[in-house]
Amino acid sequence: MAIAERTAETIWEGGLAKGGGTLTGSTGAFTGLPVSWDARTARPDGVTSPEELAAAAHSSCFVMALALRLGEHKARPERLTVAATVTLDEVDGVPTIVSSALRVRGQVPGLDAAAFKGVVDEAAELCPVSRLFAGAAITVEAELVED
Amino acid sequence: MAIAERTAETIWEGGLAKGGGTLTGSTGAFTGLPVSWDARTARPDGVTSPEELAAAAHSSCFVMALALRLGEHKARPERLTVAATVTLDEVDGVPTIVSSALRVRGQVPGLDAAAFKGVVDEAAELCPVSRLFAGAAITVEAELVED
Repeated sequence: MAIAERTAETIWEGGLAKGGGTLTGSTGAFTGLPVSWDARTARPDGVTSPEELAAAAHSSCFVMALALRLGEHKARPERLTVAATVTLDEVDGVPTIVSSALRVRGQVPGLDAAAFKGVVDEAAELCPVSRLFAGAAITVEAELVED
Repeated sequence: MAIAERTAETIWEGGLAKGGGTLTGSTGAFTGLPVSWDARTARPDGVTSPEELAAAAHSSCFVMALALRLGEHKARPERLTVAATVTLDEVDGVPTIVSSALRVRGQVPGLDAAAFKGVVDEAAELCPVSRLFAGAAITVEAELVED
């Protein structure tokens, strides 16, 4: 049996430019979120998009990988913050997700900056979403902050 | 300038097994969604996860690629439904997102099943998230349904 299996569904009506859809996850965490091409590529006005959802997947996955690796080093994080920024750009005339840039901040008592950086590198190798996003350039910028 | 750039951030406290986090997208479409390892891998109980978010990204992106390609074929979709199921499984001892399985349903007046299948194949080649997910096996099962 797999470790986890999750489904989400979008229902769309009309063409790309003037149509729109709604997105629902099977866990119930989000239901009927609107999506549209206009909100995706122009002003979002509170409307999510594939890029924001991909960033959310990457951010939430990376933070768990980091929490795991820190635990293996007997370090207990007080607080970790991982922001992911996903960029859609045109490559050879085709819209392409070119990058996911991660900014990692950690408050981890008893760990120095070099050790933290080493564990972040381990998390980057482990994170399932980092490995899933093999089509994009992934960058990681990490900083250990004071309590 | 890029076509789109979107950010999401997770704030996490504690270790992997007993800690937890909250996830916020910068558009405001979702704010403070809880995430945890337990909800990710056991009973979700209304809690999202990287796999559900990746499925949401894939589903919403694929449906837009399909709407675009249908328009280029002068076909106007009344209703398109794209469900994505993302699976996390252990590969060589490491949790890995192994697949994203898409189920596509279309109500497209004036199009026959073979033509619909052809356009779905074009959408699969175009979809930026399908190309982003180069680390996983992507399958597409498509059906044209009656109005």
